[in-house]
Amino acid sequence: MQNFTFQNPVKIVFGKNSISQLDQLIEPKARVLLTYGGGSIKRNGVYKQVKTALKKRKVFEFGGIEPNPSFETLSKAVELGRKEKIDFILAVGGGSVMDGSKFIAAAIPFKGKNTWQIITSQGAAVKSAIPLGTIVTLPATGSEMNTYGVISRKSTKEKLAFGSPLCYPKFSILDPLTTYSLDKKQLRNGIVDTFVHVCEQYATKNSKAPLQDGFAESIYKTLIDIAPAVMSGKKDYDARANFMWCATMALNGLICQGVLQDWSTHTIGHEMTAFFGLAHAETLAIILPAVWKFELNKKADKLAMLAENVFGINKGTKKQKAEAAIKHTVKFFNSVGMPTSLASYNLKPADCEVIVKRAAEQGWQIGENLDINANTLRKIFALAK
Amino acid sequence: MQNFTFQNPVKIVFGKNSISQLDQLIEPKARVLLTYGGGSIKRNGVYKQVKTALKKRKVFEFGGIEPNPSFETLSKAVELGRKEKIDFILAVGGGSVMDGSKFIAAAIPFKGKNTWQIITSQGAAVKSAIPLGTIVTLPATGSEMNTYGVISRKSTKEKLAFGSPLCYPKFSILDPLTTYSLDKKQLRNGIVDTFVHVCEQYATKNSKAPLQDGFAESIYKTLIDIAPAVMSGKKDYDARANFMWCATMALNGLICQGVLQDWSTHTIGHEMTAFFGLAHAETLAIILPAVWKFELNKKADKLAMLAENVFGINKGTKKQKAEAAIKHTVKFFNSVGMPTSLASYNLKPADCEVIVKRAAEQGWQIGENLDINANTLRKIFALAK
Repeated sequence: MQNFTFQNPVKIVFGKNSISQLDQLIEPKARVLLTYGGGSIKRNGVYKQVKTALKKRKVFEFGGIEPNPSFETLSKAVELGRKEKIDFILAVGGGSVMDGSKFIAAAIPFKGKNTWQIITSQGAAVKSAIPLGTIVTLPATGSEMNTYGVISRKSTKEKLAFGSPLCYPKFSILDPLTTYSLDKKQLRNGIVDTFVHVCEQYATKNSKAPLQDGFAESIYKTLIDIAPAVMSGKKDYDARANFMWCATMALNGLICQGVLQDWSTHTIGHEMTAFFGLAHAETLAIILPAVWKFELNKKADKLAMLAENVFGINKGTKKQKAEAAIKHTVKFFNSVGMPTSLASYNLKPADCEVIVKRAAEQGWQIGENLDINANTLRKIFALAK
Repeated sequence: MQNFTFQNPVKIVFGKNSISQLDQLIEPKARVLLTYGGGSIKRNGVYKQVKTALKKRKVFEFGGIEPNPSFETLSKAVELGRKEKIDFILAVGGGSVMDGSKFIAAAIPFKGKNTWQIITSQGAAVKSAIPLGTIVTLPATGSEMNTYGVISRKSTKEKLAFGSPLCYPKFSILDPLTTYSLDKKQLRNGIVDTFVHVCEQYATKNSKAPLQDGFAESIYKTLIDIAPAVMSGKKDYDARANFMWCATMALNGLICQGVLQDWSTHTIGHEMTAFFGLAHAETLAIILPAVWKFELNKKADKLAMLAENVFGINKGTKKQKAEAAIKHTVKFFNSVGMPTSLASYNLKPADCEVIVKRAAEQGWQIGENLDINANTLRKIFALAK
């Protein structure tokens, strides 16, 4: 096991009707910037619950944060927050709203000339942040219990991650009832995103950390178990609650402690969203199996463990088990209605040359083995056809 | 899954030679009360590492905190801390030193007449606490990442738990190398204590929380896997590191979220330590199987899951599987050299009448089903003979 430092101070308030606890979580005199997305919270009753719980607090609203939240949109919220001297941000929504709100929280007090520096410094330039709370309505990114945000810049077709301990939410409210109004694509995307988060922290060289491996496998197995009930669209509270807790635990800094990580699928996926507009989870489902095929020998130990401990495959050589793990992962993605090839989106490997070009310009050497560069990336896109 | 609130702000610094990071974790001008136990840290080199890392800080020492730390001993440390106006406590040791230091931290600024109120109020009377850091040398209690302490009062033969969020350590340093000097009894006790912590949060009625169940099962399986290497006494770093992380994760408030708990084995065990002087883990290994036999029908679902998912038993009825889980748990305890009966300590059920008497006086109704009272407790001691 590798050395590590771990600290996660986020307060999680989990369960039925937990939004009503907002009143105990935010200062009565706070000037609140309420951020949200396309307005679904107004249709599904969450907005009303939030406004009721906030009582007489001064609330400024900023709606319209889009999927893959853009620097351009968020900068308007920063302007509003500065003008109104807001001192608390309440993000109500999924990963895009939460990620975007972390950027807003860091950008409002930012002293530099250009708040994009927050992103290019990967968060290192963040010296203070407005306190932030979240209400999660779409289990997927784990943003509710981590320091990260992924921000897109439309003008330059960039999609980049940043993180700062100052961006940890002070609290996150997770009420599984809020997920009842999600559509199948949102549920599918959330399941796949969560699954791939675990993969990026598990499917690496073996770090001899069986407890972390067991935790990761527990998330995999729970996701696989609850997926049919979640995808059925039925109001199955326990299925939704377990889904929600899986998403949080998959990316709150716990399962990665002491082990190797490999975020290459995410890095490549972000480029595909930036260039082709695919949803985040859609890109992951295409790229993950291709990266695993490309790295088959180097990841064979852990992929074989995935086959054995999650998919129950006990026969065959290590390599055969590793191949079976890829096959079963693809099958699982497909089972929730998620395509796993470029062709499903009418894309060809040749279309991905724009990304290969960027990788060449930026001198990529990514993946746990630093062996994904412009040349090998072309092979990965070929495997993803 | 039940509603819950979860927050654990402890900073964990884990790994080889991590004690050297102390200098970055404590204010340079701190007046430090260094607490420890019987002096083993002076023999195994930990004391020297700590003193070197503390550099020129003003350090006051309080050694001699005994196993099952006593109110009487700790009160002397409180006196020293008040006299010297210490503003940081550094606990170096196992659960007794950490638990005792939490009491010291809460008692120094305590305004009430008698600091024992901290215990009788179960921590509710704690309004402030001196900041505390820990260096764990014996993986067992999980005290390094929770709010709890268990304190004994010799004069009244009491052993009681308290807890306060103000008693969370600011940081805990876990260096698996510090465990190399532990003797077999300490290692055995740590393994059994950790295992039983998981049991108290797992072997209850099913709460439909498969992720928490999976995490708990991962701790069980890791403990079972690494126990032979740990007990061999060899300097197997990964075995020790995984043992240490299991102990922390078993009682840091994670696996209990959203599920039923049953701490009756601990409650009964504390009385056995108070009256008979048995080590904490020794009492647990006697009482747990007896409680499980007594509650067999009510706990059958989860005990059968334990049999299937941890001990690999797939045959038989639910009841047979539940019985097999008890048998295999006893076998595991015995495999690390831990006795599991009263007779092993020359005790008879009749000797436990002092505890039955106390249970009657205090009107016990404990366990998840509130069905352990003075009468049924007598049955449990009979099952533990």
